[in-house]
Amino acid sequence: MASATPATDFTDGEAAAMDVALAAALQGPRGANPLVGATILSPEGTSLFTGHHRGAGTPHAEADAIAQAQEAGADLSGCTMLVTLEPCNHVGRTGPCTEAIIDAGITSVVYAVDDPHDPAAGGARTLRAAGVQVRSGLAAEKALELNRRWFAAVAALRPFVTLHIAQTLDSRIAAEDGTSQWISSPESLADNHAIRRRIDAILVGTETVMVDNPRLSAREPDGTPSSAQPVRAVMGLRGIPANAAIRGDDGLAHHLPTREPKEALAALYEAGTRHVMVEGGSRILSAFLTAGLVDELIVYLAPTLLGSGTSALNGLGIGTLADAQRWEWDAADGGSVRSLGADLRLHLQPQHPLSSDPRNAAEPAQKGS
Amino acid sequence: MASATPATDFTDGEAAAMDVALAAALQGPRGANPLVGATILSPEGTSLFTGHHRGAGTPHAEADAIAQAQEAGADLSGCTMLVTLEPCNHVGRTGPCTEAIIDAGITSVVYAVDDPHDPAAGGARTLRAAGVQVRSGLAAEKALELNRRWFAAVAALRPFVTLHIAQTLDSRIAAEDGTSQWISSPESLADNHAIRRRIDAILVGTETVMVDNPRLSAREPDGTPSSAQPVRAVMGLRGIPANAAIRGDDGLAHHLPTREPKEALAALYEAGTRHVMVEGGSRILSAFLTAGLVDELIVYLAPTLLGSGTSALNGLGIGTLADAQRWEWDAADGGSVRSLGADLRLHLQPQHPLSSDPRNAAEPAQKGS
Repeated sequence: MASATPATDFTDGEAAAMDVALAAALQGPRGANPLVGATILSPEGTSLFTGHHRGAGTPHAEADAIAQAQEAGADLSGCTMLVTLEPCNHVGRTGPCTEAIIDAGITSVVYAVDDPHDPAAGGARTLRAAGVQVRSGLAAEKALELNRRWFAAVAALRPFVTLHIAQTLDSRIAAEDGTSQWISSPESLADNHAIRRRIDAILVGTETVMVDNPRLSAREPDGTPSSAQPVRAVMGLRGIPANAAIRGDDGLAHHLPTREPKEALAALYEAGTRHVMVEGGSRILSAFLTAGLVDELIVYLAPTLLGSGTSALNGLGIGTLADAQRWEWDAADGGSVRSLGADLRLHLQPQHPLSSDPRNAAEPAQKGS
Repeated sequence: MASATPATDFTDGEAAAMDVALAAALQGPRGANPLVGATILSPEGTSLFTGHHRGAGTPHAEADAIAQAQEAGADLSGCTMLVTLEPCNHVGRTGPCTEAIIDAGITSVVYAVDDPHDPAAGGARTLRAAGVQVRSGLAAEKALELNRRWFAAVAALRPFVTLHIAQTLDSRIAAEDGTSQWISSPESLADNHAIRRRIDAILVGTETVMVDNPRLSAREPDGTPSSAQPVRAVMGLRGIPANAAIRGDDGLAHHLPTREPKEALAALYEAGTRHVMVEGGSRILSAFLTAGLVDELIVYLAPTLLGSGTSALNGLGIGTLADAQRWEWDAADGGSVRSLGADLRLHLQPQHPLSSDPRNAAEPAQKGS
């Protein structure tokens, strides 16, 4: 872990390449790992190859950029790598990035922010020991903002939380008679299964198990179970019925006997979960939102109206409009608004605490509609 | 009014030009007038100028295309005009299109569908009498679909109905304490005022007058009243309080003593309204949706959550998901999804009765989520 270097230590070319890396990072999905982008700059200052991380279990951004370079037969000796996060030093599901960088002959690394995990294990030290020049702090503010919620989850020793709502235009998640299959388009359902394949755990309330009896497994487009399956956690004081579909026969179903989101997250973290998707029902969704424990919100919005039935949320303890929860559009993971069949997929994150609320800046002209 | 001509009477160039006209038509807003596009084809078969209608009180598509040609100093004699609707013959807020076409020296007109208004006054007859060759029926199906709801409103002798909802992500239009100013961004409010400037009437329920006491006037971005003001109609059995802001001092406020959308529309139509925007509250919005009397739905979706308060809708008489109201995205008026400041503006129309619902085509693979 290195201390920040003054901004004047970076060239314009390096700053521009870091911006390319930041933009590339945004193409990845949020979750257990931070969004990271990396760009390799040739000695002549030309940006050569750009990589990004595509989610847990896939190559890190540095390895992605190096792999592209090697595939193109490029010689990277003497090159500089710009990366939005300190290169990792550990062998997880993928090899350590420090090794890949050293092996590629890259002689200089500039990264934006330190890896918040165990500082002693930081990659900067390893790189320096191998003779690589290392500088940091370039575009640090942007890089922190890019993964603001991820840094907060890591600091709190809890999983990153994705909240999933599949609703109608009028925010109903079930009709009066309880029917909810399917509010979303087939494309939205497939997207949801793609997320299930890359998370560690999926979490629902006991109510959802009773009413919908979902399997909550990750499945391929053809309906077969995916090779990677998330833990299936059910929170609530009631037990899971013996014949509930969620039990399955793979030992991945767990009951968390609590109604407190914080306690559920602590138990999941303890069991190794670093990314959990909360799927419902409205009581659980509302509890997580009320507790401020949602890092990412994905809303599948169907172009339908029910007018009655179960609302997505059943109370956030908000009495007046000024206290409404403010969210901001999240461009990561394919964009803030995407079409999925007839549905819209909306992607948001909690508004940055320092962001001004545009609603407070309304011109007096617009008062008294 | 002419009977349809067999499709074989049209050249490939004419068919392509009609598609251009249809696409141009979609750029306009829906309302009292249909969406119309027009393309002028040179004798050599080159598409020269394309125009479209921009809403009530603005030049028709034919006049728009001719004006562009004249501005460019083009000679239109011997040209063919392709237009998605039979050219009009009447002097409304703009001059008759037939006259403009004849004066421009255009010698051939191909239109898609007949004007549904008084057939005897149709423009085709006038054009023919002036020696212009007239053919019709090219792309008739697409042209009918383009203005499906407008044709239905005209046939029913009622105004075209735009429904407006300003809501949070969880479809709340007011917080628990009744506060609702402003759920939407300043940009959404400005867009709403732009619509108010081009409609004939704005309609709310007595409840909205009591709770929000809105002025409902159309105002410019700087807050000053627009020169064009819609009628302000309040429907419901209660009267309008003497000091209600909606009364204004311009004589444009009216009370419609009914709770029935159909009756309210009949009264408005009788008074000359051809385009009404229904703004709320939830009882009125729900009544119009339940009655199937909404031609266009505009939702301003703020990236905020309330969790409780007033839902946009308070019941549509739907008990089970299979009976949900299905809508389809409407590409007219700038697109089906637009960013307005922090908000999304969603634009929809009732699903075509013959459209298949993609939710029914879900693969068995996706059952049992």
